[in-house]
Amino acid sequence: MARINEHYAKLPASYLFPEIGRRVRAYQAAHPDAKVIRLGIGDVTEPLAPAIIAAMHEAVDEMAVRETFKGYGPEQGYDFLVEAIRKHDYAARGVDLAADEIFVSDGSKCDSGNVQEIFAAGAKIAVTDPVYPVYVDSNVMAGRTGAMGADGRYPGLVYLVGNEANGFQPAPPAEPVDFVYLCSPNNPTGTVATRAQLEAWVAWAKQHDTVILFDAAYEGYISDPSLPHSIYEIEGAKDVAIELRSFSKRAGFTGVRCAFMVVPKGVMGVDHQHVKRSLNTLWARRHTTKFNGASYVVQRGAAAAYSPEGLAQTTAQIAFYMENAKLLREGLGSCGFTMFGGVHAPYIWLRTREEQPARDARAPLTSWEFFDRLLERSQIVGTPGAGFGPAGEGYFRLSAFNSRANIEEAIARIKQAFA
Amino acid sequence: MARINEHYAKLPASYLFPEIGRRVRAYQAAHPDAKVIRLGIGDVTEPLAPAIIAAMHEAVDEMAVRETFKGYGPEQGYDFLVEAIRKHDYAARGVDLAADEIFVSDGSKCDSGNVQEIFAAGAKIAVTDPVYPVYVDSNVMAGRTGAMGADGRYPGLVYLVGNEANGFQPAPPAEPVDFVYLCSPNNPTGTVATRAQLEAWVAWAKQHDTVILFDAAYEGYISDPSLPHSIYEIEGAKDVAIELRSFSKRAGFTGVRCAFMVVPKGVMGVDHQHVKRSLNTLWARRHTTKFNGASYVVQRGAAAAYSPEGLAQTTAQIAFYMENAKLLREGLGSCGFTMFGGVHAPYIWLRTREEQPARDARAPLTSWEFFDRLLERSQIVGTPGAGFGPAGEGYFRLSAFNSRANIEEAIARIKQAFA
Repeated sequence: MARINEHYAKLPASYLFPEIGRRVRAYQAAHPDAKVIRLGIGDVTEPLAPAIIAAMHEAVDEMAVRETFKGYGPEQGYDFLVEAIRKHDYAARGVDLAADEIFVSDGSKCDSGNVQEIFAAGAKIAVTDPVYPVYVDSNVMAGRTGAMGADGRYPGLVYLVGNEANGFQPAPPAEPVDFVYLCSPNNPTGTVATRAQLEAWVAWAKQHDTVILFDAAYEGYISDPSLPHSIYEIEGAKDVAIELRSFSKRAGFTGVRCAFMVVPKGVMGVDHQHVKRSLNTLWARRHTTKFNGASYVVQRGAAAAYSPEGLAQTTAQIAFYMENAKLLREGLGSCGFTMFGGVHAPYIWLRTREEQPARDARAPLTSWEFFDRLLERSQIVGTPGAGFGPAGEGYFRLSAFNSRANIEEAIARIKQAFA
Repeated sequence: MARINEHYAKLPASYLFPEIGRRVRAYQAAHPDAKVIRLGIGDVTEPLAPAIIAAMHEAVDEMAVRETFKGYGPEQGYDFLVEAIRKHDYAARGVDLAADEIFVSDGSKCDSGNVQEIFAAGAKIAVTDPVYPVYVDSNVMAGRTGAMGADGRYPGLVYLVGNEANGFQPAPPAEPVDFVYLCSPNNPTGTVATRAQLEAWVAWAKQHDTVILFDAAYEGYISDPSLPHSIYEIEGAKDVAIELRSFSKRAGFTGVRCAFMVVPKGVMGVDHQHVKRSLNTLWARRHTTKFNGASYVVQRGAAAAYSPEGLAQTTAQIAFYMENAKLLREGLGSCGFTMFGGVHAPYIWLRTREEQPARDARAPLTSWEFFDRLLERSQIVGTPGAGFGPAGEGYFRLSAFNSRANIEEAIARIKQAFA
């Protein structure tokens, strides 16, 4: 008699990373001596920056003394962190945000999964393909998509295909939608939206009163100073866009857990009487009702990422990972791979192919076939593009998050198998 | 064109604690010299236990070194914490749980707000009245309740009234429901369910195939060894109950953020074809799709609460707060207040009344009138019962979380005004 949410049954049984884990375990069991190099999941490997470590120790010490102990904090985040975000991430780039437009959280996975709650059950959602799976799955679970079709797509979603022709940066859809998820620098393709592309998105969103969820979790990896880090660098974006940011990749916080979402007060939705309602008010209600603030110690660590030392140290970490990406691109390039990304993001997006083919007779493989081949021949784990949507088929994601020694070893193995 | 979730508009405009904060700020502005004592929000005041501090420092140090750095952890929680929970919270009380029936999270507010997602949009929900507001609000936001009536109740919810006649422990409803929220030791009334009462709930749930959400966030405050700490101490409960636990009040983690939810594999829901489905599978999907694990440093701190030193230190903290509760009960009793709770929970639930009345002519006040009176006459902040639902009207919650000096000062002030 306890009736369940049946929309969950519309999700594919096995999520991408568990399936990867299963195949790697099976390979390791059959080859116990193989030294597998993991370039699959996008997880950082460098330790936290010394400035962050010092701030976290200091915060732990504060928790040990009654006078400085912190119980419940503000759900939206402590002022010290919100002010650091306003100043360094936004004011420094010409974007003026109010403190109550910033919502500190425990992670962008949560934020990107939860944000759909403030939209109507019948809202029409657009996603890119390939795409970060949480955008899709959270809408499936909310009942907005219908059942998956034979083509691997949900009929209730609008798919915007990223492909080689558009540089994996699809244009806005022709049909009207309520809400669209964009991610730049992009996971999984590693490509980045230009200023002109973001201007086109904002103009389209204003024209159709659509809201953009702009996921900028990887903005710290942008290497060209002319590229926008925030969608709010585009005129008018504060009327149409919600922005996600994370300390996970910017400061190595994947195991520490801190992120934030920006919901400017000018971003509006409509009720059934066509009355405009502020999404900031809705999100504030959601955030204060169902969340109790990020850990104090964690917020102190995040704020330290903005100190002069913290900025220098985390910037050096990003430079280290991006040197890894450069080495990977050069190694893959010398084997004749066609690839994208890896310049403003820690991900390289490869076209799959057989190992050691004649240069002019590259045979495509499915992305799971390529996964198995790369694991068997080179003991390297990557992520099959099909795991990010039907348009990811034929592609493969390699992550630059690893030690230099492992990256160099991986390149040597790839060259042996594919050069 | 971005259509919003209009159910949010059904929530009352001002949430309880913001309204309390507003009134306290207004009082402080008018009386800048008043030393206000806060016994309102249920937030701990003692610093973290030394064993927890040591473990968190150690974990921060691990994050500083590549070899011991932790990136993404298991969404369900690290084995070291899950095993400590299994052993100390459950096996020690005769309850055998599998590791994958335990889901570590960043807080019980999140868990209790999110759990409704795995039930059908049309599921019938029962709550007690008075009640922890998140149970109600999260269902309002999900569209299960309809608009609030003039009586302060939502027509789509089944209310189970706690009152003096039933000791604020209402019996199961006559009508069938899908899901019921129980909290024991109870927030806000401070009362506790007996073994017999829990047996009646489990028997009823089995009879009607209803699922119980048992919120045991305050179990650490139970002082009678014969009372159950977990609903799973009741035969059959593993077939019908989900249990919430938190480190917030058990180990002073309100600003640290760690909790867990237990979803035994035997707890079933049904789909529209009346096929039984495991709620464990549904929650695992929810937890891994929309959450990315609690902070590693935080989980190490939580695990330290189970070490011999951690247990001794946190048990002493709870004893300190419960001595506060005893002093408050004695002080209030000496003024002739009628009150409940405060023996197995850090909350005392008072019947409101005028100050300094004749003993046999106590006049009731509304709970907000009593709030204002207590603030004006005694400079003490508590929580109006009406903030927890219509049946909380005429009652008032005082929290025992404070320094001994403040508790003693509060008692002296109450005696002056009410004795």
